Amino acid sequence: MWNYNRLLELLNIHHPIIQAGMAGGVTTPELVAAVSNAGGLGTLGAGYMTPETMKESIQEIKDLTQSPFGVNVFVPENPHATEKEIEEANRLLEPFRNELGIKDEAKPQVDESLFENQINVIIEEQVPVCSFTFGIPPKGIIRDLKNEGIVLMGTATTVEEAILNEQYGMDTVVAQGSEAGGHRGTFSGSYNQSMIGTMSLIPQVADQVKIPVIAAGGIMDGRGVRASLVLGADGVQLGTAFVTCKESGAKPQHKESILHTSETETVITRSFSGKPARGIKNTFIKEMEAHERELLDYPLQNSLTKGIRKEAAKQNRPELMSLWSGQSPRLSQSGSAAEIVKSIVAHVREIKS
Amino acid sequence: MWNYNRLLELLNIHHPIIQAGMAGGVTTPELVAAVSNAGGLGTLGAGYMTPETMKESIQEIKDLTQSPFGVNVFVPENPHATEKEIEEANRLLEPFRNELGIKDEAKPQVDESLFENQINVIIEEQVPVCSFTFGIPPKGIIRDLKNEGIVLMGTATTVEEAILNEQYGMDTVVAQGSEAGGHRGTFSGSYNQSMIGTMSLIPQVADQVKIPVIAAGGIMDGRGVRASLVLGADGVQLGTAFVTCKESGAKPQHKESILHTSETETVITRSFSGKPARGIKNTFIKEMEAHERELLDYPLQNSLTKGIRKEAAKQNRPELMSLWSGQSPRLSQSGSAAEIVKSIVAHVREIKS
Repeated sequence: MWNYNRLLELLNIHHPIIQAGMAGGVTTPELVAAVSNAGGLGTLGAGYMTPETMKESIQEIKDLTQSPFGVNVFVPENPHATEKEIEEANRLLEPFRNELGIKDEAKPQVDESLFENQINVIIEEQVPVCSFTFGIPPKGIIRDLKNEGIVLMGTATTVEEAILNEQYGMDTVVAQGSEAGGHRGTFSGSYNQSMIGTMSLIPQVADQVKIPVIAAGGIMDGRGVRASLVLGADGVQLGTAFVTCKESGAKPQHKESILHTSETETVITRSFSGKPARGIKNTFIKEMEAHERELLDYPLQNSLTKGIRKEAAKQNRPELMSLWSGQSPRLSQSGSAAEIVKSIVAHVREIKS
Repeated sequence: MWNYNRLLELLNIHHPIIQAGMAGGVTTPELVAAVSNAGGLGTLGAGYMTPETMKESIQEIKDLTQSPFGVNVFVPENPHATEKEIEEANRLLEPFRNELGIKDEAKPQVDESLFENQINVIIEEQVPVCSFTFGIPPKGIIRDLKNEGIVLMGTATTVEEAILNEQYGMDTVVAQGSEAGGHRGTFSGSYNQSMIGTMSLIPQVADQVKIPVIAAGGIMDGRGVRASLVLGADGVQLGTAFVTCKESGAKPQHKESILHTSETETVITRSFSGKPARGIKNTFIKEMEAHERELLDYPLQNSLTKGIRKEAAKQNRPELMSLWSGQSPRLSQSGSAAEIVKSIVAHVREIKS
């Protein structure tokens, strides 16, 4: 009846609960280890990390848990922007820089060898699980990781993307519904056409792939986890639910915003990073709304807004920060990561018995 | 554990499965009666019906079933359009009229006493359940219907709308997630901010209202029904799942389109009716996409495009028809309505025992 045993075996964990590898400092080693120690799979969001920071964090995680954990990385894109486009994009950000007293314009910086160096750290550190967002890595990398016995987890927002993940050798795939907070994982086809609700996405994906399916998007508690398993998923991935917990490294303003907002207050925006992502609508998003087409592509736009986001957090200005959140903020809680995992497990067990 | 008994008692039905009151000829008396005879609640989609047609249909339903059934009506709006706006909107439709050989422009017609006359028929015919879309009816009408012992069912797309439905005396409320096909039921707040996925919407609504909650949006089979109950719903409403069934009055091209499309092919469009609705993206929607702001408000736009939709169906031109569908078309089936209800009940029973 509950078919998540194969996912538990694949990942060598006790409960089919994966903490999403959110980038930007949310996934502290303490959070990752707490989820893994509770029997789920904690994941380090290493998307933006240098290989050095990543290595350090992984070693800290290993100090805190003996259980398997994952590291999430971003499959790179190499967009180009002309000097003029960069100037334009910087001009749009000027009012925010002025408001925050930031003097210098930013130059978009992309480290083209970052991904390869991150993969090397994952191999050196023998990370148990490696998850990918924004695409499928090159075949050589898939082969190298598989040779090391590292379990590979892809991300899909449509049935077609799930099938691609399976075809390219991913061991399991996260099916990300439109409710999900943070970045859309879409990598094939248009972003607009890939906004499929979790209730629709999961059974349609489960019918079309043989690898275990991990449901994501709007899932916050035992009800969402049970519903996902009922829909045909083998497990779930929770992001927003862990942002507000004790061990999360999210900025206090970010946590507070989620804890006090409602389901109608999130929107999809490209304004912070150049890629569509779901967050709580604030001044920055509103002001940039009219300029969605003038922004640089990811990750160029992301590097342009980095200083603004950092300074806004420092000055306690949530209206200029990226407040990523899914569509179920009314269900958010501020306990510990272990409490979240435990309450879900208790809820699911109640039904199984 | 399964808390849908109170909905079964309220509606006097055997299974918590409601067939959505889709307008435009889909809900034939045969379909409504088949669902009710199978132990669910069939619903006549009377939104666009004259009182006379409505009365006839209700009497036909009564000839076909002894079981309770519902009638869905649209809470009216009275938008205004200037001659110039009408001319503009008609100009946009000219290429389609030319293509179909339709000679005359349409004049937007709104019968302002339609709703009241429809309510009178519902009272005269002692219809067991009356459901509303696009708002909450005036207090006098709610009182009159309640005095007759008619059960009232509202529609909500956000937590706030669900609370309003409860406050105004609805006996139960349909919570419509963003996956749903056809018209958005949104009546308070912006359409964009009311696109909440079913996985997120149901538990957040269930936590905030005491009346029974009926989940809608992306639900097509036993998995979706069980998942909805797990999320806290008391029952479900299925629309697209019944469009393709044997007794449905949907045009053959509409049925075929749903049976052969995928989850990425539906979009939200105002082009057919003036109100946002989800349907399969075809030529008409694509061509009108750039003009979403120049359309007349509902129901004026709807009356302008009526002739085009009708003629397109006659000439077998699905690319110019309104092909409403939710986001789970891969799960659609072409059996009978009773088979759909039976397979869902078998699936849910399997778990209960």
